[in-house]
Amino acid sequence: MSFGKFISLEGGEGVGKSTQARLLAERIEAAGHKVLLTREPGGTKGAEAIRSLLLDPEGEGWGSEAEMLLFAAARADHVARLIHPALSAGEWVICDRFIDSTRAYQGGGAGLSDAAILDLHRIGCAGLLPDVTLLIEVSSEESAKRLAARDKGKSDRIGGRAVEYHARVNAAFSALADAEPGRFKRIDGMGSPDEIHRRILDAIGSMVPTP
Amino acid sequence: MSFGKFISLEGGEGVGKSTQARLLAERIEAAGHKVLLTREPGGTKGAEAIRSLLLDPEGEGWGSEAEMLLFAAARADHVARLIHPALSAGEWVICDRFIDSTRAYQGGGAGLSDAAILDLHRIGCAGLLPDVTLLIEVSSEESAKRLAARDKGKSDRIGGRAVEYHARVNAAFSALADAEPGRFKRIDGMGSPDEIHRRILDAIGSMVPTP
Repeated sequence: MSFGKFISLEGGEGVGKSTQARLLAERIEAAGHKVLLTREPGGTKGAEAIRSLLLDPEGEGWGSEAEMLLFAAARADHVARLIHPALSAGEWVICDRFIDSTRAYQGGGAGLSDAAILDLHRIGCAGLLPDVTLLIEVSSEESAKRLAARDKGKSDRIGGRAVEYHARVNAAFSALADAEPGRFKRIDGMGSPDEIHRRILDAIGSMVPTP
Repeated sequence: MSFGKFISLEGGEGVGKSTQARLLAERIEAAGHKVLLTREPGGTKGAEAIRSLLLDPEGEGWGSEAEMLLFAAARADHVARLIHPALSAGEWVICDRFIDSTRAYQGGGAGLSDAAILDLHRIGCAGLLPDVTLLIEVSSEESAKRLAARDKGKSDRIGGRAVEYHARVNAAFSALADAEPGRFKRIDGMGSPDEIHRRILDAIGSMVPTP
């Protein structure tokens, strides 16, 4: 049996990653393939327990080094217990956020070294990278508007940071996509979910099986 | 104000590290110095929360990579929030287990790469090492006897592993001490707490201030 395909979806808050991950999973399942649809941080019981620690820290909150190590631990559990076994069984894996979110948020956003983040990924996950990473992008004006709308409701610790921080995150995502054009596909995130889904299918083309 | 002194106590289960850490802290306090007495895994609220995750895992338990990253995250919090501030304020820090326990248990015991463990320590804690590490040792027969006595009661996940595993851990501690004779002081752990305390004072000699 051949190794499955691994697709991650990346981008800032509120660009529609979860919806697009679901639509893509349904499309591939409709073609008769088994699909694991998962997300980060989290995805396994152990990683969800770490996610709770990350989003609801004790006392003063986590320093940036501890935060980076906790994300790496959650990812190591997620890969070892869920993603790698699914890929080994020939399944497709669609993951809402993966290593590039750590590089964009903790690297670009919080200023941690990209080399250190990649060292942790090598140690924790044998450096596993997706076959394709879909970066869903909206303009910075649209991004600020969506963040403001979201911040009126409940906002978790990471989503609730300043607009300027999110601008740095978006710039970091963009630089990652420029640096690895073979793996990244940039997707325009404006328009209806169906329009964006169509763009994703166009971008990954023949990789997605026909029903 | 000068940087404080940092002393760690290492060794297998039940060799008397906690008792010796306390006796040493009392001795240095009696000489008029401020001492932070702490332990790993744990030491801060965040690190204690991670310790709980490590000792009481969800589902299948942690894989060795996730476990190693969680220990590193707990240590990063402990160093950033407690150990480094105390040392910067000129205090003495006495820590019951530190990086060498990870090297002996996850490296020697569970077979993880020492280079990877040291990479995580560099990333999480800027590679901070104690000024002196006291390795308290007992014979392998005595060690097995103490483990058996302890296992009759409640045993946590790491203390409860097989005798053969603990033999590998003790061998790893011994190899670490051989590799860094300047930092490590080997202490014979047989005899009464007072006898062992006396050996520790002899070993670190002029470093400990006179009351």
